[in-house]
Amino acid sequence: MASTEGQVITCKAAVSYEPNKPLVIEDVQVAPPQAGEVRIKILFTALCHTDAYTWSGKDPEGLFPCILGHEAAGIVESVGEGVTEVKPGDHVIPCYQAECRECKFCKSGKTNLCGKVRTATGVGVMMNDRKSRFSVNGKPIYHFMGTSTFSQYTVVHDVSVAKIDPKAPLEKVCLLGCGVPTGLGAVWNTAKVEPGSIVAVFGLGTVGLAVAEGAKAAGASRIIGIDIDSKKFDTAKNFGVTEFINPKDHDKPIQQVIVDHTDGGVDYSFECIGNVSVMRAALECCHKGWGTSVIVGVAASGQEISTRPFQLVTGRVWKGTAFGGFKSRSQVPWLVDKYMKKEIKVDEYITHNLTLGEINKAFDLLHEGGCLRCVLAMD
Amino acid sequence: MASTEGQVITCKAAVSYEPNKPLVIEDVQVAPPQAGEVRIKILFTALCHTDAYTWSGKDPEGLFPCILGHEAAGIVESVGEGVTEVKPGDHVIPCYQAECRECKFCKSGKTNLCGKVRTATGVGVMMNDRKSRFSVNGKPIYHFMGTSTFSQYTVVHDVSVAKIDPKAPLEKVCLLGCGVPTGLGAVWNTAKVEPGSIVAVFGLGTVGLAVAEGAKAAGASRIIGIDIDSKKFDTAKNFGVTEFINPKDHDKPIQQVIVDHTDGGVDYSFECIGNVSVMRAALECCHKGWGTSVIVGVAASGQEISTRPFQLVTGRVWKGTAFGGFKSRSQVPWLVDKYMKKEIKVDEYITHNLTLGEINKAFDLLHEGGCLRCVLAMD
Ligand SMILES: NC(=O)c1ccc[n+]([C@@H]2O[C@H](COP(=O)([O-])OP(=O)(O)OC[C@H]3O[C@@H](n4cnc5c(N)ncnc54)[C@H](O)[C@@H]3O)[C@@H](O)[C@H]2O)c1
Ligand SMILES: NC(=O)c1ccc[n+]([C@@H]2O[C@H](COP(=O)([O-])OP(=O)(O)OC[C@H]3O[C@@H](n4cnc5c(N)ncnc54)[C@H](O)[C@@H]3O)[C@@H](O)[C@H]2O)c1
Ligand SMILES: [Zn+2]
Ligand SMILES: [Zn+2]
Ligand SMILES: [Zn+2]
Ligand SMILES: [Zn+2]
Repeated sequence: MASTEGQVITCKAAVSYEPNKPLVIEDVQVAPPQAGEVRIKILFTALCHTDAYTWSGKDPEGLFPCILGHEAAGIVESVGEGVTEVKPGDHVIPCYQAECRECKFCKSGKTNLCGKVRTATGVGVMMNDRKSRFSVNGKPIYHFMGTSTFSQYTVVHDVSVAKIDPKAPLEKVCLLGCGVPTGLGAVWNTAKVEPGSIVAVFGLGTVGLAVAEGAKAAGASRIIGIDIDSKKFDTAKNFGVTEFINPKDHDKPIQQVIVDHTDGGVDYSFECIGNVSVMRAALECCHKGWGTSVIVGVAASGQEISTRPFQLVTGRVWKGTAFGGFKSRSQVPWLVDKYMKKEIKVDEYITHNLTLGEINKAFDLLHEGGCLRCVLAMD
Repeated sequence: MASTEGQVITCKAAVSYEPNKPLVIEDVQVAPPQAGEVRIKILFTALCHTDAYTWSGKDPEGLFPCILGHEAAGIVESVGEGVTEVKPGDHVIPCYQAECRECKFCKSGKTNLCGKVRTATGVGVMMNDRKSRFSVNGKPIYHFMGTSTFSQYTVVHDVSVAKIDPKAPLEKVCLLGCGVPTGLGAVWNTAKVEPGSIVAVFGLGTVGLAVAEGAKAAGASRIIGIDIDSKKFDTAKNFGVTEFINPKDHDKPIQQVIVDHTDGGVDYSFECIGNVSVMRAALECCHKGWGTSVIVGVAASGQEISTRPFQLVTGRVWKGTAFGGFKSRSQVPWLVDKYMKKEIKVDEYITHNLTLGEINKAFDLLHEGGCLRCVLAMD
């Protein structure tokens, strides 16, 4: 690998030229990492709904052409000046949520939302020169979420790289870059569910199933799964869901159905869909006095949540979470270790395996009920 | 006092016969307390906005004719069967928020919202026979909030009576029945403000000033008071407010003004007005990652709060509080003791003193900027 250090690498990547148009597998030029940057050979990447959201054109901050992708694993190819925490050959997971350990956010002890590179990653460039490291025939291609993992090589900021156990299977642990930690952390870090709690999970995709898994590990006594697709229910049992409710089977608002089923409401609820009316239902199905609702799903731009303030005055709490509150560089390696010790599931979320060349098919799968995560091999 | 025990007492009370019509000082018959009830000679009562709200007719749960009032102090006249925790002659504060120590809520350790007598107090009657103890010429008059303190004698449930230090001046500590504890508790119990925090208080009436006082005691480094009435600012300094913002002096939305003044937003905010758009501003002026907003004000029925869910996903927390989260029977006596030790203010909130006969004037004062609390002597 040392042969490519300092050189521009030409490799395959899936480029999104326009919203809602098929991605194009292209020869892309990937510039060497500058100071504080790391170039990673991506071996496996999964697709997540945030990729599909930006791809669809609904994300007002989406920039094209770009290279999407943010749930992946790979091996460091080379590092720029001043990078000390990883070296070529290290196995890593690129993290869309950075962790610099120096900014106001990192030092607060209250949040994982590092601010160090946000002004660059938010607009598809790198901090150092506010330019992209990707180009096709000399024309720059934007980065995405500071990760751009739909490429055989990518360049990320050093504060966005989690170094992991080299024995971990990269084709599995790539999932620890987004959806699974988000669900587990929503329960463990954001809600802090206690043993004996009654939990409601709205949406039984990867994120909702990881919430169920986290709630089971936290000792929840009842885990109520809510989904409009009844086919989700069988799988969900394996992740800890103890009861199912399909809103379509009821005439009453779903919050009322849940309140009736739980003698006043649940202790914790999690919205894992991205639907603002479900977010309201998730709050309102919480028990008066203490019920806490965590928004995990990402709603379309411009949409708003609402409720009567009385819901909060009578003791309910409304929260949200990004990457489950996990500090990425510190805790993703810990999650990998937990997986290696079989304390958390990962394999069970992978329903499909394809290659980079089949990425458009993988996007189609995302919208099919039967797909949790599709992992792409990059070769 | 023993002479009246077991008898119907005829006394003066301010009866609200119709929404928005002057209260009428009437001879009212007050029946003896039944099992689990306490009859109290009210000596002093203050007025609070919840009285004015129900009086105005805007409260869809308001019942007429009724006897309003819920911020008062008095002396136990007699007790019904099975009442063990207070006896005639005890000095007490009637509490609209009960504390039974037995129900699911009381035992949860997570809330002060006791459910024991709510089904009765919510509809203006007593639990025992679901009837009122008040009548005028044989026609029943509804109770209000389980307290009805605009009467020289009232009957309340024993779970709603806080026994206090008999040395405490009742003409002052009557305020510990609602507004002052609400503000202090919002800071101490609901938000749990830490030393060094930046705090924003929206609305500098009694509740907002008590929030400021609580925040100062908690060690807040900056306490930003926001009010559309600049006359409030001088008084507010005495309660701990360190900076003032009048939204009328700014063209930008007030949340943006505050974010700009605080390098990203406040750590804690409190809405002490009852205005749903201010509730939104109070949430959105909170710092990304950890800012917590507490709704204290009571909005008019049917109104809703809203925001973009992104506000919560990026770490802000939305809460509310009722009676500041204080457990009434356990903690009101503790607040009285703190007042006696000069650890909390009370006298400073009393701007007017009138008599029961002047209650309509007191209602007018409530809507004037110069009035914090008006205390009525009942004789
Ligand atoms: N906050 C974060 O950091 C973060 C991270 C990753 C993903 N997300 C978001 O989490 C959400 C879930 O992601 P996912 O990968 O699990 O998605 P998914 O599409 O696999 O799962 C969503 C589930 O919700 C169900 N559903 C749809 N509408 C419903 C309704 N009205 N009522 C009940 N169920 C309904 C679907 O049938 C599906 O099973 C997405 O919005 C995603 O963008 C957030
Ligand atoms: N949650 C509870 O348990 C509880 C208990 C008691 C009172 N309350 C509620 O708390 C609220 C405050 O009570 P209070 O007695 O302090 O009332 P108050 O009327 O004395 O104070 C309200 C203050 O808000 C200011 N204000 C009004 N509109 C404003 C705006 N748009 N922006 C900024 N400032 C504005 C007014 O000038 C006034 O100074 C009321 O809604 C009351 O019903 C709630
Ligand atoms: Zn994702
Ligand atoms: Zn940081
Ligand atoms: Zn009140
Ligand atoms: Zn109780």
